[in-house]
Amino acid sequence: MNPGDSALLTDLYELTMLQAYHDEGLQDTAVFELFVRALPPQRRFLLCAGLEPALAWLEQLHFSAAELDWLRASGRFTPGFIAWLADFRFTGAVHALAEGATFFANEPVLRVEAPIGEAQLIESRLLNLINLSSMIASKAARCVLAARGRLLVDFGLRRAHGAEAALLAARASYLAGFAGTATVLAGERFGIPLFGTMAHSYIEAHAHETEAFLRFAASQPDKLTLLIDTYDTEAAARRVVALAPELRRRGVGLAAVRIDSGDLAAHARAVRAILDGGGLGEVRIFASGNLDEHAIAALLAADAPIDGFGVGTQLSTSADAPTLDAVYKLQRYAGVARRKRSEGKATWPDAKQVWRELDAHGRLLRDHVTLATEPAPAVGARALLQPVMQAGRRLAPPPALATLRAAAADSLGRLPPALSGLAPTGAGEAYPVLISDGLRALADRLDRAPH
Amino acid sequence: MNPGDSALLTDLYELTMLQAYHDEGLQDTAVFELFVRALPPQRRFLLCAGLEPALAWLEQLHFSAAELDWLRASGRFTPGFIAWLADFRFTGAVHALAEGATFFANEPVLRVEAPIGEAQLIESRLLNLINLSSMIASKAARCVLAARGRLLVDFGLRRAHGAEAALLAARASYLAGFAGTATVLAGERFGIPLFGTMAHSYIEAHAHETEAFLRFAASQPDKLTLLIDTYDTEAAARRVVALAPELRRRGVGLAAVRIDSGDLAAHARAVRAILDGGGLGEVRIFASGNLDEHAIAALLAADAPIDGFGVGTQLSTSADAPTLDAVYKLQRYAGVARRKRSEGKATWPDAKQVWRELDAHGRLLRDHVTLATEPAPAVGARALLQPVMQAGRRLAPPPALATLRAAAADSLGRLPPALSGLAPTGAGEAYPVLISDGLRALADRLDRAPH
Repeated sequence: MNPGDSALLTDLYELTMLQAYHDEGLQDTAVFELFVRALPPQRRFLLCAGLEPALAWLEQLHFSAAELDWLRASGRFTPGFIAWLADFRFTGAVHALAEGATFFANEPVLRVEAPIGEAQLIESRLLNLINLSSMIASKAARCVLAARGRLLVDFGLRRAHGAEAALLAARASYLAGFAGTATVLAGERFGIPLFGTMAHSYIEAHAHETEAFLRFAASQPDKLTLLIDTYDTEAAARRVVALAPELRRRGVGLAAVRIDSGDLAAHARAVRAILDGGGLGEVRIFASGNLDEHAIAALLAADAPIDGFGVGTQLSTSADAPTLDAVYKLQRYAGVARRKRSEGKATWPDAKQVWRELDAHGRLLRDHVTLATEPAPAVGARALLQPVMQAGRRLAPPPALATLRAAAADSLGRLPPALSGLAPTGAGEAYPVLISDGLRALADRLDRAPH
Repeated sequence: MNPGDSALLTDLYELTMLQAYHDEGLQDTAVFELFVRALPPQRRFLLCAGLEPALAWLEQLHFSAAELDWLRASGRFTPGFIAWLADFRFTGAVHALAEGATFFANEPVLRVEAPIGEAQLIESRLLNLINLSSMIASKAARCVLAARGRLLVDFGLRRAHGAEAALLAARASYLAGFAGTATVLAGERFGIPLFGTMAHSYIEAHAHETEAFLRFAASQPDKLTLLIDTYDTEAAARRVVALAPELRRRGVGLAAVRIDSGDLAAHARAVRAILDGGGLGEVRIFASGNLDEHAIAALLAADAPIDGFGVGTQLSTSADAPTLDAVYKLQRYAGVARRKRSEGKATWPDAKQVWRELDAHGRLLRDHVTLATEPAPAVGARALLQPVMQAGRRLAPPPALATLRAAAADSLGRLPPALSGLAPTGAGEAYPVLISDGLRALADRLDRAPH
């Protein structure tokens, strides 16, 4: 069974709290919001992703008979509560930021309204899903900005943190603008274009590099890509040139060579010269090997003649910022606004809305966070949180991934220069997210209340 | 379906290479080894984990009818090859390092011998599984060393990279010495002890903190843990003291309080004094809030009276080293040693063995990497790679997790001071891993061969 679909993929305290809510008869409507407390210093913006996997999960969430048996046998819960869990379905409403939209610290990306037990139980897995996809999409977006139109492919399966991380990293990076992935299952599940060449082991399994090239060409005659750094990159490039007439004779379409080690810029230049000199000007150069947005930017700044990049570990683990500080907080219960006041972790209370203002060029100008009941804070400001689920069912079929990808491209095109750079945000450069007067007044009022 | 069980959870190039091997009739035995090229600077040793999940996956690996249909429809593969995939099973042999053993750079932790197609196909997922579990176990081991016997609990589900990462992080951290996890599914799947208290939302859902404490106590009268930092930590501790007689009257066993924010050492001291002054000397203090091994060590160095720690994000993402540089390389094919010679990525060729020497106190002295055919390099040196799978079946039933946990505890007890510290390895401090003369001679010979 898919561990991601199990209702037991939750923290124990969600279930013990639910038992207590059940015992007390607490079942009024709660409003929880999911947001990121602070951006990682290495991120100037975040790109929203993970909503569709989260909504699909909410729609199917239930306890199986085996899971109920296990909970019963644990001795931690009452029979009445287990019976309640047997009927558990998520029946609430969700407002959300669209996948592919940019967002910033303290802006709710998801607002859940449901009976408190339902809204509480989903906390752990909802965070787990949204944190992962938005983290990867945000990392991928930086690679897309750095690559200035070059082809980008997700190579991250082997270092992703498990199966689901690999699968959702492929989805999130494609959404953010990658051309595709090497992970076959992501092709099958999501229809994402697949890319792949050969490994060094294939070359090494043959007595001679030339033999390996010819054998692989016979098997993969369309859009052939040859890996040329197993022994000596430039020597292999010359081999490719020498083989070209024979490949043409056999009807093989040589598309690209891949370089995976050494000084990629220097090798790419040398290989480009060898290929061009051999009449292979149309053969592309594809690079890989522990790349990230900084390495890609540096290679392009050095005018390295590289046409595409495979990005693996750094993408699929978001290695420089392997987590977002995403939290899910109770903001309102039984019609009363609530506020967590723990030191350094206080939250803005009550159900909220996020508004965005664009400048005359259609680029991000500033955002506002207001009470959900407040009017638009400025003429032309657009409300970013929109209803996506009612009574536990999605309000519309899942959008095509291509649609979300187009939305992400639109979002990246609207970044002002202060947000599209790769360096950490400098002093005074943070994007303005204004907290409304109504929200501040409510927070002050709650802080003066007894507890 | 569990994405982790799908044969399509692989890189496309594994399948295109397999098509080529199939076309060529290449089916001789290949020896691949999985090893870490270099330790992250933040790690002085690694702790092996993930073997049992990997072996279980190998035993069940096959292509379903639906997967074969999808591959056929992709148009990338020949009918003959699809038919070969339909019969695909892993029939090879595996030697492995035991889970719970320490290991170092360039030491194979897994050696696979199988017909080349089988040994090749498993590359991506094998790396994905071993990288994840060993990375988390290594991070958890550092927390265990730092905590000097205090209780440690995995709180990492919400920030883990997806479902499988959360589940396997619970397993790997328990193996490394954590007392348990908050992730319920890990209790169900692996029998790992579960821990959990309440969230701030529970407190906030009640009109008054005292009411929340009493209600939760009524629902969870055994080993009650109360979260006391929602509003004012010390005031809440005084509330707990004031409530104690009433709780006793009701038969509630108050076990602990949890602090999740602010200066944990200062709060723990103040709370300890309040509890002790109120006759609650036996009530434990549990701390959480973005902890890692360094924070734990600092709290204990400051004599903070904390009895247990919840470790979340930093553990389940191994945030300071969110990947190991694990690779899987062809070392021998059709009876001939092979060597990848790419710049900066050259590997030691042929099937190998790892040997460990202990000092007079039973602590790690030095390791040796030799050809598998070489004799023990020193009297008393122990061979670490042992056979675990033959003809695609495990040679023994999976060991109990408690056995692996005991092995890990034994491993940590054998670390010399140079390896058990938390700071990055200083110059000259790296653990000695000696490469045998036989291995060096073979590498030299291969480097002189044409390619």
